[in-house]
Amino acid sequence: MPSADIGLIGLAVMGQNLVLNMDDHGYTVAVFNRTTARTTEFLSGPASGTKVIGTRSVEEFVAKLRPPRKVMLMVKAGRAVDAVIEQLVPLLDEGDIVIDGGNSHFEDSARRTSELGELGLLFIGTGISGGEEGARHGPSIMPGGEPAAWPEVQGILQAIAAKVADGTPCCDWVGAGGAGHYTKMVHNGIEYGDMQVIAEAYHLMSGGLGMTHPEMASVFRRWGEGLLDSYLIDITADILGHVDEQGEPTVCSILDAAGQKGTGKWTVISSLHLGYPMTLVAEAVYARVVSALVDQRLEAAGVLGQGAPTDGGGAGRFGDGFVDDIHDALYASKIVSYAQGFMLLEAAATEYGWDLDYGRIAQLWREGCIIRAAFLDDITAAFERRADLPSLLLDRFFTDALRKAEPGWRRVVAAAVGRGIPVPAYSSALAFYDAYRSERLPANLVQAQRDYFGAHTYERVGRPRGEFFHTDWTGTGGSATSGSYQA
Amino acid sequence: MPSADIGLIGLAVMGQNLVLNMDDHGYTVAVFNRTTARTTEFLSGPASGTKVIGTRSVEEFVAKLRPPRKVMLMVKAGRAVDAVIEQLVPLLDEGDIVIDGGNSHFEDSARRTSELGELGLLFIGTGISGGEEGARHGPSIMPGGEPAAWPEVQGILQAIAAKVADGTPCCDWVGAGGAGHYTKMVHNGIEYGDMQVIAEAYHLMSGGLGMTHPEMASVFRRWGEGLLDSYLIDITADILGHVDEQGEPTVCSILDAAGQKGTGKWTVISSLHLGYPMTLVAEAVYARVVSALVDQRLEAAGVLGQGAPTDGGGAGRFGDGFVDDIHDALYASKIVSYAQGFMLLEAAATEYGWDLDYGRIAQLWREGCIIRAAFLDDITAAFERRADLPSLLLDRFFTDALRKAEPGWRRVVAAAVGRGIPVPAYSSALAFYDAYRSERLPANLVQAQRDYFGAHTYERVGRPRGEFFHTDWTGTGGSATSGSYQA
Repeated sequence: MPSADIGLIGLAVMGQNLVLNMDDHGYTVAVFNRTTARTTEFLSGPASGTKVIGTRSVEEFVAKLRPPRKVMLMVKAGRAVDAVIEQLVPLLDEGDIVIDGGNSHFEDSARRTSELGELGLLFIGTGISGGEEGARHGPSIMPGGEPAAWPEVQGILQAIAAKVADGTPCCDWVGAGGAGHYTKMVHNGIEYGDMQVIAEAYHLMSGGLGMTHPEMASVFRRWGEGLLDSYLIDITADILGHVDEQGEPTVCSILDAAGQKGTGKWTVISSLHLGYPMTLVAEAVYARVVSALVDQRLEAAGVLGQGAPTDGGGAGRFGDGFVDDIHDALYASKIVSYAQGFMLLEAAATEYGWDLDYGRIAQLWREGCIIRAAFLDDITAAFERRADLPSLLLDRFFTDALRKAEPGWRRVVAAAVGRGIPVPAYSSALAFYDAYRSERLPANLVQAQRDYFGAHTYERVGRPRGEFFHTDWTGTGGSATSGSYQA
Repeated sequence: MPSADIGLIGLAVMGQNLVLNMDDHGYTVAVFNRTTARTTEFLSGPASGTKVIGTRSVEEFVAKLRPPRKVMLMVKAGRAVDAVIEQLVPLLDEGDIVIDGGNSHFEDSARRTSELGELGLLFIGTGISGGEEGARHGPSIMPGGEPAAWPEVQGILQAIAAKVADGTPCCDWVGAGGAGHYTKMVHNGIEYGDMQVIAEAYHLMSGGLGMTHPEMASVFRRWGEGLLDSYLIDITADILGHVDEQGEPTVCSILDAAGQKGTGKWTVISSLHLGYPMTLVAEAVYARVVSALVDQRLEAAGVLGQGAPTDGGGAGRFGDGFVDDIHDALYASKIVSYAQGFMLLEAAATEYGWDLDYGRIAQLWREGCIIRAAFLDDITAAFERRADLPSLLLDRFFTDALRKAEPGWRRVVAAAVGRGIPVPAYSSALAFYDAYRSERLPANLVQAQRDYFGAHTYERVGRPRGEFFHTDWTGTGGSATSGSYQA
C-alpha cells in the first residue's frame, strides 16, 4: 500500500539526516539501503519513534511510494548513481521523479536529465550542502535538472531547507540540466578557498606570532562577530578551543595531510575549460595536495631548512596590529575568491545557456551550507544594484572593502614572504587583484613570443579586436602562420 | 610507383617545415593537403627544387609510399586527426605506421595506439616542439605509442631532430600509449610557465623600474649568457630590441591579451587529476586568462585604481641591485616550475605504467624545442645522481641554487606586493617552496574542519597512516562518518 510521500536510497550520514529532517516536517519517508543491516540499525536507532518506513528491496521500496513517485538518491557520486537509476527505471512510471542529492558532476546531471527525460522520467540533480548538521536541521539545497519536476518537489525541499532570517528558504530552482550541481560545485570550490584562507591565518598566528590555541580561538570567536561572521570561522574557534583528554589542543594531534573529495578540483578544471580565473581555489586545492606529500616535505625540510634567511625580503615584520592585518588579508582574499566564483558562474551560464539569478544563489548559500556567512547578503545586494555585474570587484561595496583591507593585506603577504611562511591563497588573490585592475599587463610580450616562435599572430593596441598581425622578428621567417593549419 | 620514404599530411607551417627538413636529410617525402592549392603553392614555393612529391588525393598519396608505409599527420589536434585516420585506414596494410605529430591530447594518443593496434597498424603519437624554426632545422621530438613502430621510424625522426652538443639527437622513444604526447604536454605547460616568469620580469623592469626597452633588451641578452641561457630569454631580448617603422618598440603596440591553445590548461588539469602540484603553470595559464579580460580590466582600473597605497606593505623597495634580484626570482621560480613538471611526469608514469627516463627527457628538451636551455643539463645530472629523485628541489645542485637565489626572490615578491605589481608566478612558486619544505602545515586545521562539518575523519600525528579518527567536536554529533556512504 503506497503511503510514503518520498523515498530515499542511501543511509550514510547525509541520507540518514535528511530522512529525519523530512520526518520532522511531517513527511512520510520510505528508505532503502543496499546493506539491510544499516536500515535496521537506522530504524531502531536514530529513526526510532518516527514514521520512517524501512524496506528490504528496491521493489518493496518503490511500492511504498505514492505517485508521482519521488525518489531521492544519497549514494556515492559516479557509477553508483547510474547503477541505482538502472535498478529503479523498470519500476517507475511516467512522471515519476528521481532526485540525485549527492555530489555528482554537473555533466553527469545534465546527461541524466536528458536520458531519463527520454524515458518520461523527471530528473533533478541537486546540490545539498551543510554536512551532517545541515542535513539534519536545514541544509542549503540547489536543485537543477528538469524544470517540470520542480513544482512537485518544491514543497518538501523548501520545507527541509535552511531559512534566512525572514523565512525565505535556502532552496530554489537554479536552472536546467546540470545547473544545480554546477552551483554546488562552485560552492564547494569556494569552500576549499574559505578553508585555506582560514588555514593561512592559523599558520601566521601560530607559526609567525607564536600565539597559543586559546588565544587563536578567541581571535576567531571575535572575528565571527564582525565582517567575517560565518560558519567556518565559528567552527574554527570551536576547533582551536577543543582540548583532548590530556588537556592539549585536539587539533595539534591531527596529521597535517589534507584530503579532498573532488569538487574543488572540478571547479578549477571547469574554470580552465571556460577560460576564467579561479586562482584562489586552485591554490587551495594545491595546498591540500602539497600537505599530503608528507614524506617529501620531511625530506625537504631537512635538506632545504625551514623559515627564511634573515636578510630575505627586507619585508614588513610581524608586529603590533598584525592580527588585524591578518583579518584584512583573510577578508580581502575571501572577496577575491567569491568574485572569481561568481565570474565562473556567469561564464558557465553563458556556456550552458542557464538563466542564473546570482543574487538568489548567494541567498541559497546564506544559511544551511558550509560557506554560510553574513557576507553573502553583501553579494546579493551587489547583484541587486546591477544584475549583470561582471565581477563583484566592480561593485562599490566591495571596492570600498578592498581599499580598506588592502594595506594590511599587503603587509601580511610581504611579512609572510619575509619569514618563509607560505600564504598561497593570500598572495595569489593579491596578484589577481593587482592584475585585474591593470590597464596594461605584460601579456603583450607573451603574444610577441608566441608570434616569434609559432607564428601565432597578435592583435594591436588601438586596432579592432579580431584583426591579426604577424611580425617576421628575425627577418628570416616565412609567411605561413599557425592559423593556416589545414589537413 | 611507390618511391617515397615517408608521407606527410597537412601543409601548415609545421608540416611544411618538417617536410623540408626531411628532404634536407635525403628522405623522399610525399605530401597531401586537403586544399590542393596549398600543395601547389608549397611545391612551387618553399619546396621547389626538392624531391618532395605532391599528391592530389589520399589514394594517390598512399600509393606513393614504400612499405611498410609511414604516414605522418600534421593536422589540427582533435577530430581532424581521427577523420584523416579514418580515410587512411582502408588504404593501409598491416604493419604500416601512422605518426601523429600534432598537439594531440595524450588520452587520444593512447586510444589511437590501441584502436589502430587492433587493426594491425602501428600508431605513434609524438610531441614535436620548436615552432617553425625548429621544424625546419631540427625540432625536439617526443615519440610514444606502439613500441614496435619505433625501430621503423627511429632513423628518420632522429635524423631530422635537433642534436645536443655531442651529437645525441633530441628524439628518443619516450614510452607506450600516450607517453610521448604527455611529455609534450608537460613541455608546453612548462613553456607557459617560462613565458610567464619572463613576463613578470618585464613587468617589474618596465612598470617598476621604468627601464627603457633597449635597456631591458640588453639585460635579457646578458642573462642569456648565464644561468638563464635559453631560447626564450634570447628571443625576449630580440623582441624587446625590435623596433617598428617609426622606431618605436614593436612590442609596445601589441595588445596585452594573451591567447592559449590548450596544452597549458591540459597540464594543469592532469596535475589536478593526479593530485600533484603545478601551481606555477596554473598561475601562468590564469595570467593569460586575466590578460584576455581586457574590458573588465579597463573598468576595474578606473574603479579600483592602479598600483598600491604608499603605506601598503612596508615592504622592500625597488633599489640598487633590483635587476639582479629579478634574475634570482626568475631563476628560482623556474627551478620550482621544472621541479613540479618532473614530479608530474613521475606521477603520470606511476598512474599510466610508463617507464620514463627523466634525465633523457630533459635532454630531449635540451635543443630544438621552445624551452631549450642550458639549465636542462643540470636536470639530467640530478637524475643521473639519483634516478628516483622525488623532486628536483631535493637535489644538491638545485638546493644550492635556491638557497643562493632565495634572498633576492623574497625581496622581489615583497617589493612587488608593496607596489601593486602582480607577480603570480614568482609568489606562487615561493609559496610552494615554503610549503614544500614545511615540516608542519596548517592542514591539520583543514582536516579538523572537514571532520567537524562532514565527519570526514582524520589521521593522527605519530600514528600509522590509514588509521582514522573522528571527534564529536560539539558533543552533539552522531557516530556515522562520511566513509560509510553506501547505497
